[in-house]
Amino acid sequence: MYCNPKEGDEMNEDFPVPEAADIVVLGGSVAGLTTATVAKRYYPDKGVVLIRRDSPVPIPCGIPYLFGTIGAVERNLVPDAVLDFEGIELVEGEVTAIDREARKVILSDGPAIAYERLVLATGSTATIPPIPGADRKNVFTIRKNPEALAEFLAALKAAEDVVIIGGGFIGVEFAEEIRRYSEKNVTIVEVLPHCLALSFDEPFCIAAEKELTAAGVKLLTGQKVAEITGGEEVAGVRLSGGEELKADLVLVAAGVRPNVELAIQAGLRADPVAGIWVDRTMRTEDGNIFACGDCAAKISFFKGKPSHTRLASVATMEARTVVANLYGVRRENPGVIGVVSTVVGKLTLAAAGLTEELARREGYAVLVGEASSPNRHPKVIPGVKETKVKLVFEKHSGRILGGQAMGGESVGELVNVIAACILNRMTHDQIASFQMGTHPLLTAAPTNYYLTVAAESAAQKAFATR
Amino acid sequence: MYCNPKEGDEMNEDFPVPEAADIVVLGGSVAGLTTATVAKRYYPDKGVVLIRRDSPVPIPCGIPYLFGTIGAVERNLVPDAVLDFEGIELVEGEVTAIDREARKVILSDGPAIAYERLVLATGSTATIPPIPGADRKNVFTIRKNPEALAEFLAALKAAEDVVIIGGGFIGVEFAEEIRRYSEKNVTIVEVLPHCLALSFDEPFCIAAEKELTAAGVKLLTGQKVAEITGGEEVAGVRLSGGEELKADLVLVAAGVRPNVELAIQAGLRADPVAGIWVDRTMRTEDGNIFACGDCAAKISFFKGKPSHTRLASVATMEARTVVANLYGVRRENPGVIGVVSTVVGKLTLAAAGLTEELARREGYAVLVGEASSPNRHPKVIPGVKETKVKLVFEKHSGRILGGQAMGGESVGELVNVIAACILNRMTHDQIASFQMGTHPLLTAAPTNYYLTVAAESAAQKAFATR
Repeated sequence: MYCNPKEGDEMNEDFPVPEAADIVVLGGSVAGLTTATVAKRYYPDKGVVLIRRDSPVPIPCGIPYLFGTIGAVERNLVPDAVLDFEGIELVEGEVTAIDREARKVILSDGPAIAYERLVLATGSTATIPPIPGADRKNVFTIRKNPEALAEFLAALKAAEDVVIIGGGFIGVEFAEEIRRYSEKNVTIVEVLPHCLALSFDEPFCIAAEKELTAAGVKLLTGQKVAEITGGEEVAGVRLSGGEELKADLVLVAAGVRPNVELAIQAGLRADPVAGIWVDRTMRTEDGNIFACGDCAAKISFFKGKPSHTRLASVATMEARTVVANLYGVRRENPGVIGVVSTVVGKLTLAAAGLTEELARREGYAVLVGEASSPNRHPKVIPGVKETKVKLVFEKHSGRILGGQAMGGESVGELVNVIAACILNRMTHDQIASFQMGTHPLLTAAPTNYYLTVAAESAAQKAFATR
Repeated sequence: MYCNPKEGDEMNEDFPVPEAADIVVLGGSVAGLTTATVAKRYYPDKGVVLIRRDSPVPIPCGIPYLFGTIGAVERNLVPDAVLDFEGIELVEGEVTAIDREARKVILSDGPAIAYERLVLATGSTATIPPIPGADRKNVFTIRKNPEALAEFLAALKAAEDVVIIGGGFIGVEFAEEIRRYSEKNVTIVEVLPHCLALSFDEPFCIAAEKELTAAGVKLLTGQKVAEITGGEEVAGVRLSGGEELKADLVLVAAGVRPNVELAIQAGLRADPVAGIWVDRTMRTEDGNIFACGDCAAKISFFKGKPSHTRLASVATMEARTVVANLYGVRRENPGVIGVVSTVVGKLTLAAAGLTEELARREGYAVLVGEASSPNRHPKVIPGVKETKVKLVFEKHSGRILGGQAMGGESVGELVNVIAACILNRMTHDQIASFQMGTHPLLTAAPTNYYLTVAAESAAQKAFATR
């Protein structure tokens, strides 16, 4: 067994690098942090070292809310006290190579750390599509380190005309946050017919877009960017239809690419788009090296095809799976369901699994069940909000493939009930008979509970056509 | 097949009673209403008659909030328009007998209605323990009809010193509601060591009691009532320890008994405490007669023993199971889990399945996992509230037996995620790897999500002692 370096060992005090550790984790964001802290609890006798490049680490999901709700980068950091408290050794530096033969990672300034198990949690990097002019000043992507974020926030505060390329969650959340706390002109340009179209069916997208428009966000959907115009600095965005938008800041929120360079260089199977290949136990081709989080390749829960859904909640699941399997196979990753939630204006929206459109496109015969009900009962209770649920089932087996919900805040947890139904491959008949807790001040009435009513409506259709 | 009476048939216009119907439902509250409306959707060609005694029907869960939040009995009624809309024939009257041989129900004023399938949803009645003086004026139980509720509310408004016997959900919710909207003296007398002790382990009960005390409710737990004192009207409550409480109104909230008289009289197997016997398809001993809701006997999901958990959400599950099985076996009732939620002061509390104490008392070897986290991330997000989760697992299989949560409002749906885990008999390893949706404005951070962290802590204990 490897040991932690002992006090009194020779090392650079400013940058103490141990010679070896049982478990070495590369990456300090969601996947790395979860791996390190959970590993230390499971294997208290093992030395755990976490090596990270950035210091300190921003909370990724909080980034769209930095502008006003959170207010500053330093109010959105993972507290390092967690690592200290859990007995994890922190090393700040850049790993430049993995020596698999010697089981060592090599740091940029020379020293090496030997490992028994290595976990790659190197994350992802926002991509910039090949748009002419994307290299002009004040064209940003979201970079998850404090300096880059602070620089972006400062530029954002000074900007007047903001164009966001990409109407996914990051684009939508940034747009609404900026309008909530300022009078800046904010425009979203989205190539698909609707914002959030990869997670929601059309009526849900339209509801979100209504809230965005009400907040003063200008939406240009079904539109492609032809060029980012200007001189050294950005001056505008020209769409492929010819329309010119004035812009003194452009945020490109058009997806991410896994950070796989180190893995490829070490001879591990990895793909620049898909990520580092792992089996269901999260092992790479090298049995002593695991990968999890945004850098790891993913498969879909539904048909086992490659998935490009990269979420913090997927990263934590994968990290926990890594830890369980570090010294023997104990858990298998069932694949990504994809569970998302957001708030747009006064509306909370959430989704899990496949939309109806996506399910049909994947070749499933689908059966849909829908329900709408006030989220309090009776509806005279203060704070009531109509909440709508749509569930998508596979027609022949009756098994749930996905669900979407919008309404009040509790939709943020309601979607996790749907996720549990999906994970357990429940049928519409089973969900219709679900035993839920209801309360006048908290939920729909038991007679109108969204999930049971939506599932029953699908079950009833199946019964009618049996 | 039986038919609905046609227009032009001879009948009393004021009280139109059909001679026959395919499906006759007795009872107009949660179970009966759900049965009738769902049945009409499944079997649109069948005539459905709902016979009820009270008119109109109060929403049961809303009753504790009549005093101030809802404000009036007529703002808490099931709208009859639902029945009209669904094409259900409503008959108001009292059924005095069931003629099983002739397949008819007999109404008190003479006419009979023939049935193909009969569903008993006759509900329950609040019990009064054998306390001397319980027959004095201004001693109330909750009777679920508008007149009785209006009478009780009027008396409550006039009262100064209110004593509530029973610190279960009804007692606790009434006490807090009264204090929220008045300065009346409110005292709860509970025979168990804590309020809500059948649903929560001690730390959760204590947290609820703190909120009650802060709201000005006086708590006397572990105390028995010896006598309700006074003359014709109530004047006080004497505890078995000798203490005398002043009272001009007493609410007895000490449980309910199923309404089984009609079933027993018809020769069906039924028990005054347990309810009308049904199999897992909700059939009584007579294959054409079903029972559901508070009147039906229940078994526990966990060990199949009789259960006394009577909840509106259980009633709807049972009603949907009845409907599915009316013309053939299609669903089985898995037994009662028991999922409850409530709000006490600023705290939402919810529970599903067995508490640790109850699980141990039932003979299970248990493993507990706990977690506590702000319900927003980072915790600087406005509206944040620390939320605590406790999960109880069966030690040998790792399967979840129950869970409790307290914190912000979303706990009302979080408990339904726990319920889904229980229904699917998930293990701590499976729940630790749960794929949940998280969002800064809606939930804990993915790294700290209550359920996965609590499950992981149990899994880690199991791993450590393997």
